[in-house]
Amino acid sequence: MKVKPIGVIHSPFRQATGTPIQPCFARGVEGRVEVFKEFVPGLRDLAGFERIWLLYWFDRTVIETPGLLVKPYLDSARRGVFATRAPARPNPIGLSAVRLRKIRDNTLTICDVDILNGTPLLDIKPYVPKFDSFSVARMGWLKGAMAKRTVADNRFEKKSR
Amino acid sequence: MKVKPIGVIHSPFRQATGTPIQPCFARGVEGRVEVFKEFVPGLRDLAGFERIWLLYWFDRTVIETPGLLVKPYLDSARRGVFATRAPARPNPIGLSAVRLRKIRDNTLTICDVDILNGTPLLDIKPYVPKFDSFSVARMGWLKGAMAKRTVADNRFEKKSR
Repeated sequence: MKVKPIGVIHSPFRQATGTPIQPCFARGVEGRVEVFKEFVPGLRDLAGFERIWLLYWFDRTVIETPGLLVKPYLDSARRGVFATRAPARPNPIGLSAVRLRKIRDNTLTICDVDILNGTPLLDIKPYVPKFDSFSVARMGWLKGAMAKRTVADNRFEKKSR
Repeated sequence: MKVKPIGVIHSPFRQATGTPIQPCFARGVEGRVEVFKEFVPGLRDLAGFERIWLLYWFDRTVIETPGLLVKPYLDSARRGVFATRAPARPNPIGLSAVRLRKIRDNTLTICDVDILNGTPLLDIKPYVPKFDSFSVARMGWLKGAMAKRTVADNRFEKKSR
């Protein structure tokens, strides 16, 4: 199963260290999504949405996760990778709900960007509260972990580049 | 960029026709996620989460979308594919927030399943309201479209199988 980039995400973040770890910690950070020309017709009707999902490829992430355990940014213990949002995953696909400001030709101006500059874009989906917004009573180890850290360090970053 | 299945999703739905188009229209529908043995260590700490994201591969979907426009289940007009959640996309990756009931060995019992039986699983992420839950003021063509249809038909399904 092969995926192909449909565009590139541009942001102020050149390296993992200092990059917000989620859009909620990147309030107001602007970025751009450049959609490759051949995919531009698929953007029709998107401008009406206030928020969109970006699915993207963690292209600068260490894929090797010994034992499939990672020490996430928000904790000091090792956790099963599927219980975290860490970028080092068997399929390194990222998911961020960003605010959509405007669309002009093949460029989307977005806000609340927590993504490294140059990241390959895989998909755009509209954010629909009825499909995507839920309250939960239980959120495992993340309960109470929120205050710890809001930006990344280099723990998942490829060293040679 | 290659993705590999980390498991298989089991559900009561053998064909697109009649399958709920989103988890919110599949309340109470039970399914199972079978995680391949080598990925089981990554499930540690996941049981504490009430809801999880499943990322999966739309393996029975027609990929050809002429002009990148699709007539989504919730509308009678053709829309840009990136302004819809239709399965026929340049990268056919699905995204569903399902409820997690329990985990035993390599099997997750899940609820609110809107996914075809046998669908390849790509990733599991914990659902975290602070990261994922937002209200929006604008939701484009989907405003008011919600009442129209809650289950799929065969418009995106491969004919020969």
